[in-house]
Formats: sequence, structure tokens, C-alpha cells
Amino acid sequence: MLRHLVRPNDSKIILLVMDGLGGIRSEEFPKTALEAARTPNLDALARAGACGRSMPISHGITPGSGPAHFALFGYDPLAPENDVGRGVLEVTGVGYKLLDTDVAIRGNFATKDGDGVLTDRRAGRIPHEEGERICAKLQRSITEIDGAEIIVMPVREYRFGVVLRGTGLDPDVEETDPQLTGRKPFAPQPRSPGAKRTAEIIAEFIRRANDVLSDEKKANTVLMRGISSMPVIESFADRFGLNGAAVAAYPLYRGVAGLCGMKLIDTGYTVKEEFETVRAIYSEGYDFIFIHIKKTDSYGEDGNIEGKIKVIEEVDEHLPILLELEPDVIAVTGDHSTPCALKSHSWHPVPFLVKSAVCGKDEVETFGESDCDRGTLSVFPAIKIIELLLANAGKLKKHGA
Amino acid sequence: MLRHLVRPNDSKIILLVMDGLGGIRSEEFPKTALEAARTPNLDALARAGACGRSMPISHGITPGSGPAHFALFGYDPLAPENDVGRGVLEVTGVGYKLLDTDVAIRGNFATKDGDGVLTDRRAGRIPHEEGERICAKLQRSITEIDGAEIIVMPVREYRFGVVLRGTGLDPDVEETDPQLTGRKPFAPQPRSPGAKRTAEIIAEFIRRANDVLSDEKKANTVLMRGISSMPVIESFADRFGLNGAAVAAYPLYRGVAGLCGMKLIDTGYTVKEEFETVRAIYSEGYDFIFIHIKKTDSYGEDGNIEGKIKVIEEVDEHLPILLELEPDVIAVTGDHSTPCALKSHSWHPVPFLVKSAVCGKDEVETFGESDCDRGTLSVFPAIKIIELLLANAGKLKKHGA
Repeated sequence: MLRHLVRPNDSKIILLVMDGLGGIRSEEFPKTALEAARTPNLDALARAGACGRSMPISHGITPGSGPAHFALFGYDPLAPENDVGRGVLEVTGVGYKLLDTDVAIRGNFATKDGDGVLTDRRAGRIPHEEGERICAKLQRSITEIDGAEIIVMPVREYRFGVVLRGTGLDPDVEETDPQLTGRKPFAPQPRSPGAKRTAEIIAEFIRRANDVLSDEKKANTVLMRGISSMPVIESFADRFGLNGAAVAAYPLYRGVAGLCGMKLIDTGYTVKEEFETVRAIYSEGYDFIFIHIKKTDSYGEDGNIEGKIKVIEEVDEHLPILLELEPDVIAVTGDHSTPCALKSHSWHPVPFLVKSAVCGKDEVETFGESDCDRGTLSVFPAIKIIELLLANAGKLKKHGA
Repeated sequence: MLRHLVRPNDSKIILLVMDGLGGIRSEEFPKTALEAARTPNLDALARAGACGRSMPISHGITPGSGPAHFALFGYDPLAPENDVGRGVLEVTGVGYKLLDTDVAIRGNFATKDGDGVLTDRRAGRIPHEEGERICAKLQRSITEIDGAEIIVMPVREYRFGVVLRGTGLDPDVEETDPQLTGRKPFAPQPRSPGAKRTAEIIAEFIRRANDVLSDEKKANTVLMRGISSMPVIESFADRFGLNGAAVAAYPLYRGVAGLCGMKLIDTGYTVKEEFETVRAIYSEGYDFIFIHIKKTDSYGEDGNIEGKIKVIEEVDEHLPILLELEPDVIAVTGDHSTPCALKSHSWHPVPFLVKSAVCGKDEVETFGESDCDRGTLSVFPAIKIIELLLANAGKLKKHGA
């Protein structure tokens, strides 16, 4: 329905996403992090723009990072075809190109005791370099099981990816992570008859990994999670006529953007580095640039409001790097809320602002949760954001005569 | 789901639609037309009523007049069966009764040079009387082509309607209007094999019309647009239990209202004439009266904010004619926004107010875009307006025990 309304032009859109941006007020936190932060640049954007609250799924439904980003990119977060496994997201997020017949697995290095009981599900959060060393060690010893090629790759710290490549593989296999220490990992059980051989290959991988890692102090076993294959997803370009680029440092967000067909840009991890990356690619012909800031969510999950405030202020401080590019449309929001009061993702709608020459300025003066409650966009589904940005960019014709 | 909730009573609803009412603030226009207009009567209604912003389709999607009015009348503007051709809308809008087997065409009189190249797509906007004269001239010469009866009727100024009546006709034919001057019109191409004969009839009509009009200075050719047949649409009475009347001067809006089964009332073009028409029919048993004011949109499309303000003030000045009728429910809104800053229809939500004894008064003091942003109805889909008005009129039972 929408695609035929798209009318390409030269205008450029920036979508700046602070992960888990939204918060709630509570007795402990009488202001949210966004309300407490000093944000003169974001406030000026809110004053000149149109504000509201974006709803990742619906009142009461808390999204994971994958669905939340699919919604931001205009894909139904509840559609089965967009329920992409974490294995696929992590592996594609580090830039690995999956075949449709591959099975991708997200692994955790973990610590077990002499009885095989888990004592640490994250192997003491070993540093990234340790993870790289151990992945190389595994890959040297394990390259093929029952005719399937085995590819092992580091993701980040204690997290790694495994790809099974071959014919007749089926990802319909249960995870082995029991989610608690003091227990043994589960065996990889097939959920359907066709996945029996794949489950056996994964079981054999775990046995061999336990052998190879037996001399490691921390990372002496593996947990296999998010066992999955590539979904069939209409590309962002086909869906919205946009040539998109993703400036995101963390694998999962790169993974979702990559699945939607956005170009994944290499970038540093700091806010300033990410914004400088946008500046560096700005003249390269992209008309949609997605920027992902991770740390707002991490501090929210820790309940660390000072940390979350500091990241928001860091974004505000460096925002002029983006503003000086004079994008035709700039929008700022989060993928979901991560209130410090909850130390977790939540369902609360997320502050949203869009600024363009035709945004329909409202009377919101500062960028915050309660301010955005009074904005002209009201509470609206995150899945409509891309259409709204296309309209602001003059890239949509009218529907009907 | 809704129909079984309808509980008829004697209460009366007035829906006053100012076409393209909504606006946006911009550098050039720091206030919208509605905000700048002096509207004591509308403000009093807003103060006594409940306000919000109605959303014709969704954030970012700009509706044409047809879809926007279908939404106002409670019909899904995106449903294929409500995607009615302009030919049908124009021909039914002038009161012509179409058969299901007819093909209706919206025609433009246009000017071509000696080589058949278009020099004016609207024949210099010839006056309505000229259009009537030329239609009569065409009708005298062309009454039948290949077994199909040909009916020609004036619509307004340079616009006319053609109905093909017969068996085996199929409207799946491309328009001939190239949308630009300096080009020759397209031939009427069939889009499917079944429409071949209809396309040939239209081509023959154009050839004969060119002959008949060869001595005209301005209107010496025709463009054929919106080739379409009657859709199957549930009537307003069946859907909502309402006996509706439409007080609208312009054909397209009469067309949509007529397709929904509302009674089309003859009326003059000025605001005062339209309101007097409502007064004249008020005791005739209608429990829903739709009033359409066109010029707010026309001035918006011209970017003429003084003109738009003046029409809004004219509506306000004559509003007491409606208020003295003491309708149980009165609602005021637009079908979509037409900001002077954009000189076109837009996606921005439209100021909306409803006043009844049970509307749920909010704290909005004046009728304007930003005022309505703070209203109790928030931003809500236009397709829900009729249900809201039915409820305010006491015409809806509760759902469930």
C-alpha cells in the first residue's frame, strides 16, 4: 500500500536512537534521566519540532531489542517473520554473511565446576581479547561435525557466534542455557523431528568444546542460545525507497539494520565517534542514517541514573556535529523505555521528537517524558515513525484523489 | 461489531467539516489560519466541548479528498472497496444515478494547438455556463458508440462527466491526461484484456469530441480521467442506523456522501446559504447532517492565509444559525489539513471539537491546533468520529454486560 506513495527526492533523514531512552518517575527517582539531564540542544530541537511518545508495541507490552528496532524501522514487531533469532542477529551483527541454509547460534562462554554444574553463566565477563583467543582455539580444533562445516567467531567479551553450514540443517532446537547458576546446562533437544540431526551436531560441538576448554580457568564450557536461521525480510529500500546506513557499534543493532538491508558503517563506540562517523559518510548518497547509542540502556538496566543522565548529556553536547550537517529531517527517540526505577526494559512510551521545515511545531519547550505527553503527535505506534519521517522529507505522495 | 450497539432515538447530530481546516506553524506563518482567525463562537464551543485532533489515515500519510471523507464517514480509507474513482464521485456528485454496469469518467475540457499538443489542461478555466453549453453541444452529436449509450453532463466550469451505459463495459482503462502541457494526451489504454472494447469506445468518443469542438477557441479537446464503476458500499443507514443528509455544494463531496447513501440536499455555495439550507431541512427527520465548506481548502492550496482566515471567520460569524437549531451533538473539524505553508493537503492531524450534554468537557479554551493538542480526545483516527458522535447522541448501547 505504502510503496506506491513513495516519491524519491534528495532530502536526508537522520534517526537518532538512544537505546532504552524512556524512563518513569518514582519515589526513588522523582525525575526521569531525560528530565534531569541538562540538554539545551535537544530542548531547542523539541521547541522547533513536533513531539509525542512512540509506542514500541502497545500499552503494557515490553519489547526486546530486536522487536523494538524492527518497529522503529517500520516492520511489524509481532509478525512471525520478524521474530528473528538472536543467533542470526549476533552473527550478522559482526558482519558475517549468512546463507539461507545456515544455522546461527549465539554462544556464551561460561564456567562449570567438576560436576558440570554452572558457577558463572558469563565466565566472569572475560575481556574481549580473551574471547577472541578462545574462539580461535575452538576453531582450530573444531571445523566439521557430521558433514556440517563449523564456523566460530567472537562477538563481544564472553559472547561468541557459531554457524553450522551444510545441507539438511534445521534451527528448531531448544537452548541449552538454564538461565541460572547451580544447575547443569540442558541438552540441546530437537523441537521437531526434522531438527534431530542438528541437535546432535550441537551436542557434539558442546562435547568437543568442553574437551578443548578443559584447561581454561573461567571459560571452560559453552551455552548455546538463539538457535536460528535467516528470515526472509523485505529490504528497507524495497519497502520505503530509502538508501539506509546504520551507524551502530553493537552487534545486535547492526544485525537488525543489516537484515533490513541497511549499509553497516564501521564506527567507534563513543557518542562523539559515532557522530563523527555520520559526518564522514554524510555526502555518500545515503538518504536515511540510523544512529544507535547503547549506553542509555545499559545504565538504565543497572538502575544507575547518574550514568544514564551523563550519556544523555554527552549526546546533547555532541549533537551540533549532526545539526551542522543540516539534515532535512532529524528525529530523536529510543527503541523502548528502560526506567532506572525498573532496571529493565519496559512498556512505557518513549519520548519522540521530529524537526523539519514542515513538522508542525507544537508548544513543547523541552525534551522530556511529560513534555512529550503534551506534544502534537500524542502517543503513536513506533511502526509509523518511518512513514512520518518520509512525509517530513517530502518523500510521500498523497493517497487517493 | 458496531451495528448491534446502535439504539435509535430522536437526537440530532451536525458534523461541520471545513475542508483542509488544519494548518502548521512555520517561519512564514507563525500562527495557523485557525489560530489567527477571530472565532468567538467556535471558541465558545471548544470551551464547552471536548477537543482533540482527528487523524485522517495515520501519521505521515496525506489523504486525497475521497479517502479523507470516507474516513470522516466511518469507512476505512485504505480499504480497496472504498478506493472509488473520481469519475464515479463527480458523476454521482452532480446527482446522476449510476447503474452498477455503467462506466463513469471525469472529463476536463482542455486546449490543444494545431499539432494536438496541450496548451491548457483546463481550457482557460472557462466559466460554468460555457461548460454547460459545450456539454449540450457534445451530447447533441454523440449519443451512442458501438452499442453503448453516451451521456455527457456538466460538472463545474471546465469539468464534465461522461457515462458509458451498456453491457460488457469495463473501467480498467488508463487516463489520457498527461498532467503537463506541452505534450499530447495519452491514448486510452486498456489495463486488462476485458477492457479493450471500453478503451476503443473512449478513443472514439475523443475523436468525435475533437471534431465537434474544432471550432471552439478554448475548449477544443477533452481529457478523460478517473475511469471507474460504482463500488459496493454498505449504506450509512445500514452501518450506523443514521438517516443522513449532506449539505455540500461541490460535486466530489456530494459524490462521497451520496455513495454512502446520504440524501443530497440542494444548496447555495456560500457559508450562509449552506447554513440556511440546514435550517430549512432541519425538521425533515434527518438525524445526521453533514455540512461541507470548501473554500478553507482552496485558500490553503493557494497559500493564501488571509483568504483561509476569512472563510473561517465567515463560518464563525454564521455559526449561530446552526447553534439556534440546538442540535444534541455538534462537531467541527476538517477532512485533512491543508497548511498554507505547504500549499497542499498534508498528513498533520486536524483540529476537532464535539459539543453535547455528555461530551466530557476538557480545559481547552479556544479552537486551534495547539489548543486541541491539549484536549481530552488526543490524536485519534478520523474513522472513529461517527462512533463518538453516536455515543454523544445517546445512540449507542454498551458493549457486553
